[in-house]
Amino acid sequence: MIELIAKLPGLGPRSARRVALHLLKRKDGLLVPLAEALGEAAAKITQCNTCGNFDTVQPCAVCAAPNRDETTLCVVEDVPDLWALERAGAFRGRYHVLGGVLSALDGVGPEDLSIAKLVSRVTGGPFSEVILALNATVDGQTTAHYIAEQLEPAGVTVTRLAHGVPVGGELDHLDDGTLATALRARR
Amino acid sequence: MIELIAKLPGLGPRSARRVALHLLKRKDGLLVPLAEALGEAAAKITQCNTCGNFDTVQPCAVCAAPNRDETTLCVVEDVPDLWALERAGAFRGRYHVLGGVLSALDGVGPEDLSIAKLVSRVTGGPFSEVILALNATVDGQTTAHYIAEQLEPAGVTVTRLAHGVPVGGELDHLDDGTLATALRARR
Repeated sequence: MIELIAKLPGLGPRSARRVALHLLKRKDGLLVPLAEALGEAAAKITQCNTCGNFDTVQPCAVCAAPNRDETTLCVVEDVPDLWALERAGAFRGRYHVLGGVLSALDGVGPEDLSIAKLVSRVTGGPFSEVILALNATVDGQTTAHYIAEQLEPAGVTVTRLAHGVPVGGELDHLDDGTLATALRARR
Repeated sequence: MIELIAKLPGLGPRSARRVALHLLKRKDGLLVPLAEALGEAAAKITQCNTCGNFDTVQPCAVCAAPNRDETTLCVVEDVPDLWALERAGAFRGRYHVLGGVLSALDGVGPEDLSIAKLVSRVTGGPFSEVILALNATVDGQTTAHYIAEQLEPAGVTVTRLAHGVPVGGELDHLDDGTLATALRARR
């Protein structure tokens, strides 16, 4: 149990022992519910075939929601960015999760990301605007530029989040207000 | 799942989301094994009735081991301290876990700790020496002093870990070498 806990991000062998002891001391209040929650997550949560979000239903609740704007598609790097935008509550369209950004250094090419799927989803789809809500990092902006080029034949309006996202910062670390402002002032 | 993860020591809402995503992306490699390990721990691990250690067997493996010194009892504050001493491999006797230290500030009195049980275990038991391996904090040393007094009628030798444990430091944070030296040079 400790070895597995030590594999979680941000935890080492010592903090894993601390967590394990904390769990063993709170068996009914924490250990059993957590074991059940993890088991349930493993059994029920899958990646949405449409957008790449995690949910217990297929397609995910965001894709299945009938009252969302069908003409706007928001492209995000990863699922926490989607969660951050949903928490901000400023976007009511659909999402597309890339699963990362292009990175020559890490050997991540267009074929490693969900870019071809994005292009086919947009081409002939109901979308009139694609918002590239990628992190304001070098890799994020390179990816945004590449995707904008790929989407050119589809004839949709391609926008980016407004300046307001601090340069070098990551989407998941922003407060909801900044995120909402950046979304409204997109250009 | 995220709410429960956020209750673990050292984790907040943001790191809990990060851990949850990490788990969902490694379903077969980490999420399923971890869920099973936690479930198994909840079902099988109990606190030893003799010493207070956590184990899948009753009494625990340390209490049940036939080749350990029956005449020396080592009193520790909590289970991680027992684990630290076992990792150091310098002690081959039995253990007694107090479950904390006396603290006027936190309202922890002798009745909240496993002290009465320790006294009855030592009185008329096979032990000739009791080692008080408590943290070198004010509360730890106060507790050691109190226990030494309580054990006086039992007529056993009561020792403490040698200086070598840095004053103000905690047992679980020491390297194995320092811990072994401190144990050997007990006075």
